[in-house]
Amino acid sequence: MAPKYKLTYFPIMGLAEPIRFILSYGKIEFEDNRFESDKWPSIKESMPFGQVPVLEIDGKKICQTIAICRYLAKQVGLAGDNDWENLQIDMAADTVTDIRTKIVSPNYETDEEKKQKKKAEVINETLPFLLPRLDNLVKQNGGYLANGKLSWADLYFVALIDLLKFMIGFDITKDYSNLSALKNKVLEIPAIKEWVAKRPKTER
Amino acid sequence: MAPKYKLTYFPIMGLAEPIRFILSYGKIEFEDNRFESDKWPSIKESMPFGQVPVLEIDGKKICQTIAICRYLAKQVGLAGDNDWENLQIDMAADTVTDIRTKIVSPNYETDEEKKQKKKAEVINETLPFLLPRLDNLVKQNGGYLANGKLSWADLYFVALIDLLKFMIGFDITKDYSNLSALKNKVLEIPAIKEWVAKRPKTER
Repeated sequence: MAPKYKLTYFPIMGLAEPIRFILSYGKIEFEDNRFESDKWPSIKESMPFGQVPVLEIDGKKICQTIAICRYLAKQVGLAGDNDWENLQIDMAADTVTDIRTKIVSPNYETDEEKKQKKKAEVINETLPFLLPRLDNLVKQNGGYLANGKLSWADLYFVALIDLLKFMIGFDITKDYSNLSALKNKVLEIPAIKEWVAKRPKTER
Repeated sequence: MAPKYKLTYFPIMGLAEPIRFILSYGKIEFEDNRFESDKWPSIKESMPFGQVPVLEIDGKKICQTIAICRYLAKQVGLAGDNDWENLQIDMAADTVTDIRTKIVSPNYETDEEKKQKKKAEVINETLPFLLPRLDNLVKQNGGYLANGKLSWADLYFVALIDLLKFMIGFDITKDYSNLSALKNKVLEIPAIKEWVAKRPKTER
């Protein structure tokens, strides 16, 4: 029997969206359990390390977005064919996570003036250093983040673009032709297109 | 022919130490290329995403500590036996990374008063929430982070303890019997013991 999947997260795309993309890509049914923020304190206590997203697989609670993505990718044909290919996928995905972390970091600053200064640094220094390199990685890999073919790293990246846009104020792929093309390519995958059309509409 | 490994990092343990642990565990020879900090600007430019550690495998530059650890683990018998076991290992390792990130985060605060306040929060709230859960995970897994047996997640965790101690001022395993026992067990592995005895002595 197919395992039963239940995904628990806030009622937003956020860090759960890459998991939803991969499940949708594999046409795997899952319970998309979105809780309201006022329920968070009690849910937090019941989660392995007080974090979400958590994916329950036949009732066993698993946390950590990237770990979940990698596991599901193996079930749906989005992992590499060998250890070397998986290394390239992992390197790309962790680099995307670093970019995400840098974009999110100014929001932890409580002082408004400092927050704006940090945000400007991210926009004017960090991203202009990292995004051309990510764009070039995609160029070198035939339009994908790794190995010249679609992998879960591509879905992970594209699923996070809306969250990053909400955080930083613009689509980070806008000035990068290889990243834009990758985004369009992933969003044109029929199963992804279908998911995006039917998912709850949220701003992040 | 065995691949040629060259590991480039600052002259500290830091984020390269888990990679050095796993290479040492597998008795894999590697060039331990430690550069002085004044060389960093030029080295940064030559690295895939301006970060280290970078492991060159037969001249091909690979970044991202966790991705490198997972890849090497497969070569030296520290990965899981199946997808489910690897999921448990990945979840544990990413949780250790979260704890590391939280311990390091106050250091990005420029205001000294705020830095101390954030550090106190980490010590009094974040760690007392996360460490008992990590300790319990080890208890549930027969003295290891995952699957009741040694994996690269254990080496990753133990190799970072000195860095975390430098950051936060104490050994995070000190009040947790399962974490302390895991630390001792990993440090007693002959190949690790040998590496720790011969490595350059640095404070972090």
